[in-house]
Amino acid sequence: MKILVANLGSTSFKYRLFDLTTERQLARGGIDRIGGPESRCTVEIGSFKDEATAHVPDHAVAVKFCLEQLTAPETGCLKDASELDGIGFKAVMAGALSGVRHVDDALLAGLERYAAIAPAHNPPYAKAMRQLQAAFPNLPQVAALETAFHETTPPELRAYAVPHEWQTQYGIQRWGFHGASHRFISQRIAELKGRSDLKVISCHLGGSNSLCAIRDGKSQGNTLGMSPQTGLPHNNRVGDFDPFALPVLIQETGKTLPEILDILANKSGLLGLSGLSGDVRDLEEAAANGHEKAELALKVFTQSIRQYIGAYLTVLNGADAIVFTGGIGENSSRIRKDVCSQMDFAGIEIDLAINEKLRTEGKFSTPTSKIELWVIPTNEELVVARQTAELLSKS
Amino acid sequence: MKILVANLGSTSFKYRLFDLTTERQLARGGIDRIGGPESRCTVEIGSFKDEATAHVPDHAVAVKFCLEQLTAPETGCLKDASELDGIGFKAVMAGALSGVRHVDDALLAGLERYAAIAPAHNPPYAKAMRQLQAAFPNLPQVAALETAFHETTPPELRAYAVPHEWQTQYGIQRWGFHGASHRFISQRIAELKGRSDLKVISCHLGGSNSLCAIRDGKSQGNTLGMSPQTGLPHNNRVGDFDPFALPVLIQETGKTLPEILDILANKSGLLGLSGLSGDVRDLEEAAANGHEKAELALKVFTQSIRQYIGAYLTVLNGADAIVFTGGIGENSSRIRKDVCSQMDFAGIEIDLAINEKLRTEGKFSTPTSKIELWVIPTNEELVVARQTAELLSKS
Repeated sequence: MKILVANLGSTSFKYRLFDLTTERQLARGGIDRIGGPESRCTVEIGSFKDEATAHVPDHAVAVKFCLEQLTAPETGCLKDASELDGIGFKAVMAGALSGVRHVDDALLAGLERYAAIAPAHNPPYAKAMRQLQAAFPNLPQVAALETAFHETTPPELRAYAVPHEWQTQYGIQRWGFHGASHRFISQRIAELKGRSDLKVISCHLGGSNSLCAIRDGKSQGNTLGMSPQTGLPHNNRVGDFDPFALPVLIQETGKTLPEILDILANKSGLLGLSGLSGDVRDLEEAAANGHEKAELALKVFTQSIRQYIGAYLTVLNGADAIVFTGGIGENSSRIRKDVCSQMDFAGIEIDLAINEKLRTEGKFSTPTSKIELWVIPTNEELVVARQTAELLSKS
Repeated sequence: MKILVANLGSTSFKYRLFDLTTERQLARGGIDRIGGPESRCTVEIGSFKDEATAHVPDHAVAVKFCLEQLTAPETGCLKDASELDGIGFKAVMAGALSGVRHVDDALLAGLERYAAIAPAHNPPYAKAMRQLQAAFPNLPQVAALETAFHETTPPELRAYAVPHEWQTQYGIQRWGFHGASHRFISQRIAELKGRSDLKVISCHLGGSNSLCAIRDGKSQGNTLGMSPQTGLPHNNRVGDFDPFALPVLIQETGKTLPEILDILANKSGLLGLSGLSGDVRDLEEAAANGHEKAELALKVFTQSIRQYIGAYLTVLNGADAIVFTGGIGENSSRIRKDVCSQMDFAGIEIDLAINEKLRTEGKFSTPTSKIELWVIPTNEELVVARQTAELLSKS
């Protein structure tokens, strides 16, 4: 079965093509500046790489163009477009319409109902899905919601302390996100340890950041709450914040609520704190050169990760492993060191020498550490491809 | 030195009178329904108790009436009103005007600027202070801000991940509250242990709830953030909440932002979750009789306390003691049991038999527990009286 996994921005389309029989990635590619006068269309099929430019008015045309590249006579990896069994989307959030499901009117309405929760993702996904339905009526579309992995979260870790009917009627609860990534980590650490009865804290640290408490392969909670803006600070999104600061900000700045929320969703996080960049690599370099606000941003980030690790140690009553993944988790030895040092109370012992060099899959705790520390590169797209194939096989 | 410590509501006035030479409480009393046709005025001076009714139009008249009771010829404990050296207020929050300070125009403006942060407290305090300035121009007024104890919080535990100028210009940061209570606990546990180089997690659990991480007598952070609505769920206030749920609630309910915030500040917390009561005693009774939402509310509360204990264990890298105080902390053996059980990862061992009966100052951990567990009744008023006397002695 061949599945294309799509990753959409409002003006971009990135994809990976998988053969699920072998779980091999056949190709990857993408198109930027959709809707602009000229887009760059890249494709990688094995060792073959190509780049073209074209006028791409919308996401349906983007998919058409990519399919042409994938079915090109000499270089393509598909005989024709009908060889594609389905397209899977890592969709963010449609309230109670969670799980893995066919893209239908109800799902599209759900994405649009919760547009304010994921303003950078829900609207372009719904729009692109509609365009693709019209352009490729016979191509099955599947949405693997980011909230799906967290459906096992116990009610007491899900509920905000709000009127109960807000949860039942309007879906106001901690949904959790990054489900595909945390599911991948959960499965991979079980393979590595040869057992699945594990207590794991999965730390997905990239542009968007979250921790997940996992027991026996099941999510017990995620630091992202109602929206993907909460929890840890993100590259440019705020993380945890007090809603009662909003009337003060409205009063003091003269801005409206939507304007304030826009700043919290786009100009806050590590970018806002540092006034410099949302990229941890930039901040580490600047901090090393004495930039005080870059150093502060890194410390706020580290402290937030540490505190949530502590919180999840109480949820799980300890842990077998803490796993770091994502661009920061895989590459920043400084963040890993600052997070895992001074944690003697839980018996955590980091091997500083191994940590310093580790950039791929591997363990960086000492042999006597009570909790193992790991780096495991994530593969969200493979999880979405697997989930899409599984749903299509059933139906 | 004789100090009256005032606790104000919008229509109530409660006080305690201390002799700071001996730290003895001389009297306590209060007046309710201020502004209504008839108020009840109670006073207790040693074993003497009295109750009267009167028309009390405002807080200045309330203080006058109380002073009459305190200086009554046969039963009073003051010769005349001039024997009173000052009045101390446990004021909530005036932004950067923290600490212990004389009530002046700047402080009153600060309380009013941040009215939205503590809507039930800041406006009546500012109003009553102005009335008292006019009625008793020679009586020194001192505000001991609830934020004062947390001035030692490191910058990385103070900052939200917002644009840096929001913190410097508008005071958008984690201020922390319940300062008098956590300061009292910090001092008392040091007395009990005979040393002050302690790592302590102080759990103030009452109508309003917060945890404080304390190292060497200095606050390292408090679960209450910009406003006293954040952190743990409270009796009727929400605790931590995602601001990005607000546009969904506005869209789904048709209510305005102020209306939603009012529900979050008055009809949420344990009351909102249970739909029954914000009082843990009611919830424990209902849960024992099978009330599912009461049970859920208690579990959400317990989980939230546990997670913040875990967070603060990482801030302090362990703890010497976890102390419970406040109405719930001192009296609910169920909450203490649920919080302190299944915490083996940190070496916490609760003595269930002792915990079951403990209602006064005492230890309820086992002798082998790596972290001691204590109940210590708090005395916020005494702290405010001490702070008021100290400032007045200096000036």
